[in-house]
Amino acid sequence: MAIGDAGGISPELAARVLADPQVNSGDLIVFGDRRLLDLGARHAGVTLDLETINLAGLADLPETGSLIVDLGNLDPNDAPLGESSNAGGRAALENFGAALLAAEAGAADCVFFTPFNKHAMRLARADYVDEIGFIDATIDAPESGREFNVLDEVWNARVTSHVPMKDVAAMLTEERIYQGLHLTVRVMEAAGITRPRIGVAAFNPHAGDGRNFGDEDEDIILPAVIRAQKEQLAVTGPVPADTVFVRAVRGEFDAVLTMFHDQGQIAMKLLGFDRGVTLIANYPFPVVTPAHGTAYDIAGQGKADTGATFNAVNLGRKLMALQSRKPVADKLAALPERIERHLEKTASV
Amino acid sequence: MAIGDAGGISPELAARVLADPQVNSGDLIVFGDRRLLDLGARHAGVTLDLETINLAGLADLPETGSLIVDLGNLDPNDAPLGESSNAGGRAALENFGAALLAAEAGAADCVFFTPFNKHAMRLARADYVDEIGFIDATIDAPESGREFNVLDEVWNARVTSHVPMKDVAAMLTEERIYQGLHLTVRVMEAAGITRPRIGVAAFNPHAGDGRNFGDEDEDIILPAVIRAQKEQLAVTGPVPADTVFVRAVRGEFDAVLTMFHDQGQIAMKLLGFDRGVTLIANYPFPVVTPAHGTAYDIAGQGKADTGATFNAVNLGRKLMALQSRKPVADKLAALPERIERHLEKTASV
Repeated sequence: MAIGDAGGISPELAARVLADPQVNSGDLIVFGDRRLLDLGARHAGVTLDLETINLAGLADLPETGSLIVDLGNLDPNDAPLGESSNAGGRAALENFGAALLAAEAGAADCVFFTPFNKHAMRLARADYVDEIGFIDATIDAPESGREFNVLDEVWNARVTSHVPMKDVAAMLTEERIYQGLHLTVRVMEAAGITRPRIGVAAFNPHAGDGRNFGDEDEDIILPAVIRAQKEQLAVTGPVPADTVFVRAVRGEFDAVLTMFHDQGQIAMKLLGFDRGVTLIANYPFPVVTPAHGTAYDIAGQGKADTGATFNAVNLGRKLMALQSRKPVADKLAALPERIERHLEKTASV
Repeated sequence: MAIGDAGGISPELAARVLADPQVNSGDLIVFGDRRLLDLGARHAGVTLDLETINLAGLADLPETGSLIVDLGNLDPNDAPLGESSNAGGRAALENFGAALLAAEAGAADCVFFTPFNKHAMRLARADYVDEIGFIDATIDAPESGREFNVLDEVWNARVTSHVPMKDVAAMLTEERIYQGLHLTVRVMEAAGITRPRIGVAAFNPHAGDGRNFGDEDEDIILPAVIRAQKEQLAVTGPVPADTVFVRAVRGEFDAVLTMFHDQGQIAMKLLGFDRGVTLIANYPFPVVTPAHGTAYDIAGQGKADTGATFNAVNLGRKLMALQSRKPVADKLAALPERIERHLEKTASV
């Protein structure tokens, strides 16, 4: 678990996760500053009985018990509550990177983080674009991650995400959509949804209206859908983007695969996605976080809702079963040194 | 008023409008087949006291009183209830065209139609694309129409509509967006919404995220917004497309101007746009229709909800005040002949 932005509700949420046996099975490794976590615990009104270790201790983790790897990287006085700060952004990045490296080495099976503030992260690192770019740059992943937005009623996966709209058409390929369908099925089955029914959003208005408004729906999306259907995947589409979520909400689909960022986000945010979970999959371990933001307006007041946070942890736990992994001895031995280098690099940019 | 598709609830809805003094002020001119309207009245369980005239009578309209111009163009037996048919699609097109020509000649101040079925219209005319294309081809309009989707809570206007997504970026210009803002304000003020607050949707994810994900938001949308703001229009944007409707629903905006079709339609359909109204503006007269479809599944059962239909008529009435128009004597004299040619042309395609 990486403690997110210090200016918002992230330290409180981290403390609440640790304090609640619903989500803390005594197996959480927290990355962050102990002073910040303790402040979060005070704000949350919870008491933490938690061992503190330093980086070197990571190479020889105890078998059981939650603990914090105290990175000593943020005096809470340097990151005022209720606003974004360079120090808060930098610490959040450091915590996240350390947790990712620990998972890569097999010390953890899932990375969970409490909310980041993008503005703060850019104060610390102007080149920060998004979580996926940061993960790609931090660990040695064979493929880039894919983001899923998860609500109780409906999941949303996307074929393209943080790219200019004018480039989307050229990025849509049958293979990319087909792989997106398989990844979605794999992830959802690991999350306990057997044979998920996926609605595939069309790209053009009215699904191209029989080629009157563009050809991608017939030439790219339809072949990918047919290929997946032949493999017995429960896939429907291309479905006009303006009805696919209406049909999903009515219970017809468990997930919607959208072609670009806002196609799904417009719908998910109207459906109350703030209470949902963001999942980044396609790495050797799942990365999960609540979908809402840092809520600077209620920071430190102990009234942050834990619903999405607990859902995120629980989803991460389910997905840990997706890959059966074991700590890699040499990677684990090198972990303190790798995190040390990550911290130096983050501090120096 | 043009009677829409005969296979669905359109004849019933037309009859209900005529029978209800809430929406019939004794000034409605209906275009369609009298037999079809009478059947609709029977299904709706209403009695119509309505004069019938023929095309020639249009040149010398009585001062007051609703009436039907009986085009004699559809024996109801040729268009079975509950399905789309060539005959039904052709008649709907004929009725719509006749009403448009009547409005163009000044015989009517607004065109209202009960729902069409696009499939039926294409059975009749394979080249039929959408209402706007049909209006452009039927009347002599200086500019093409713009579609508005109207819910009680929020209006939606769009900068581009029925075009391939890959072409949208190139179609966005500062001028087009600026004109769209002015048209939206003009139309909404005519509808009684003073100084409407408009949220302008961004084109790229996260409104381009400071040019990380595309430049149109900074280079095209923002200048149009600033230009409109300088003229004291209550315009905000570019607002990320995935939050602009959430903010509108919370009461922050009266309308959202979207850059492309599905950007608005995804949101409006989730918000229950079926109970809304579609308005086509930017012609010398407004064109209005309920947003829902022909509802083949409940056709002829007299249980169609009239909410959206009545809202459409009432919106049309408000917007008639937008332009002060007078019948053009020579156009009015030529109207029967023009409609006759329209009917011949539609029948022959």
